[in-house]
Amino acid sequence: MRYAVLGTGIVGRTIAARLAALGHQALIGTRDVQATLARTEPDPMGNPPFAEWHTAHPEVRPAPYAEAASQAQAVVNATSGGASLAALTAAGADNLAGKVLIDIANPLDASAGMPPVLNPVNTDSLAEQIQRAFPEAKVVKTLNTMNCRIMVDPSRVPGEHNAFVSGDDAAAKEQVTELLISFGWPRSAVLDLGDITTARGAEMLLPMWLRLFGAFGHPDFNFHIARA
Amino acid sequence: MRYAVLGTGIVGRTIAARLAALGHQALIGTRDVQATLARTEPDPMGNPPFAEWHTAHPEVRPAPYAEAASQAQAVVNATSGGASLAALTAAGADNLAGKVLIDIANPLDASAGMPPVLNPVNTDSLAEQIQRAFPEAKVVKTLNTMNCRIMVDPSRVPGEHNAFVSGDDAAAKEQVTELLISFGWPRSAVLDLGDITTARGAEMLLPMWLRLFGAFGHPDFNFHIARA
Repeated sequence: MRYAVLGTGIVGRTIAARLAALGHQALIGTRDVQATLARTEPDPMGNPPFAEWHTAHPEVRPAPYAEAASQAQAVVNATSGGASLAALTAAGADNLAGKVLIDIANPLDASAGMPPVLNPVNTDSLAEQIQRAFPEAKVVKTLNTMNCRIMVDPSRVPGEHNAFVSGDDAAAKEQVTELLISFGWPRSAVLDLGDITTARGAEMLLPMWLRLFGAFGHPDFNFHIARA
Repeated sequence: MRYAVLGTGIVGRTIAARLAALGHQALIGTRDVQATLARTEPDPMGNPPFAEWHTAHPEVRPAPYAEAASQAQAVVNATSGGASLAALTAAGADNLAGKVLIDIANPLDASAGMPPVLNPVNTDSLAEQIQRAFPEAKVVKTLNTMNCRIMVDPSRVPGEHNAFVSGDDAAAKEQVTELLISFGWPRSAVLDLGDITTARGAEMLLPMWLRLFGAFGHPDFNFHIARA
């Protein structure tokens, strides 16, 4: 498959590298390739600048959002939540139409300090905003509830734990489920929550995720739904 | 111990009956005892009216909020979230002062339809509202993230799953943890999230709980945090 992963932060890099390792073509989309490659500072979490990562992953080619999306059969939104709609607009509605759009972002807003707040919340979600803005894309929310290294390697966390999928298109959810299985997720670990409005629930896990991260001091954990 | 359980709905009844079965004195607090006993209709979820339940549980005596709280050594807030501050005000700050106040309520607001929204959210929580309103009480948030039958009998759900505790007073959290252990929770299943602000995370699980309830069609499930 040909994938476009939008977002050159640690999440986008991790997904793109995993897709490439699985034999897919992975373009990594960014607003301005030259600016992205020119950065020399680590990000606020200490991750190396993109150019350094790219030297180790030449198989993942950076491209402007629109070029990446136009060449892809499926698109992953791995931008920060507050920038997602702008990034997808730059990618272009025509380049998203008819394609599975895997939304793994969280609409966290740290502008008023830490911990960040979730916006939208309760009656809307980032996934729904994206689906409304790009009605011809097949938006599937998934993987936003865990650290990115677990997304592509669930064995980092022992025992059973879950990936959730939300979306209006059953075939798109199945396609995403198969991608998750290729990442190492057992099919039984993928919980279909229902339509795209159920992404509200998955996004609202983030404040708890942040508190658990605070309590444990590391991100190697994930939600599991135990059930009778 | 002498407990007051505020709230005569299915959650309060379940907790009060379990406390009594464990040999504690359990008063169940309500605004107006006569009015509570006079109801003859099932609640919106089909639970029998209080009087019918009380006939089967004469060991749990209904009492006005203030009388229940004044006689108790520890208080459980099992009222609906939107009514909690009023119920606790009726219980009386003096009757709560110095006591462990176990908040198991969720601030869900269904006034605009289903699914209900969470209010407050993000930058505040019901638990914090209660702690601010009753600064001399030792508020511990717990058990709000599951169906009430699981609260008092975690074996209803197979495998590992968690109860969370949030609060500013370490001794109060330990006292609540010991109560949870007496309900059947392994100590290792009780996760201390931190101070009372961490209740925001636990309360924000509710929208996901509601979506999972919708996906599964039953409430016999619970959150488990799998971790390395």
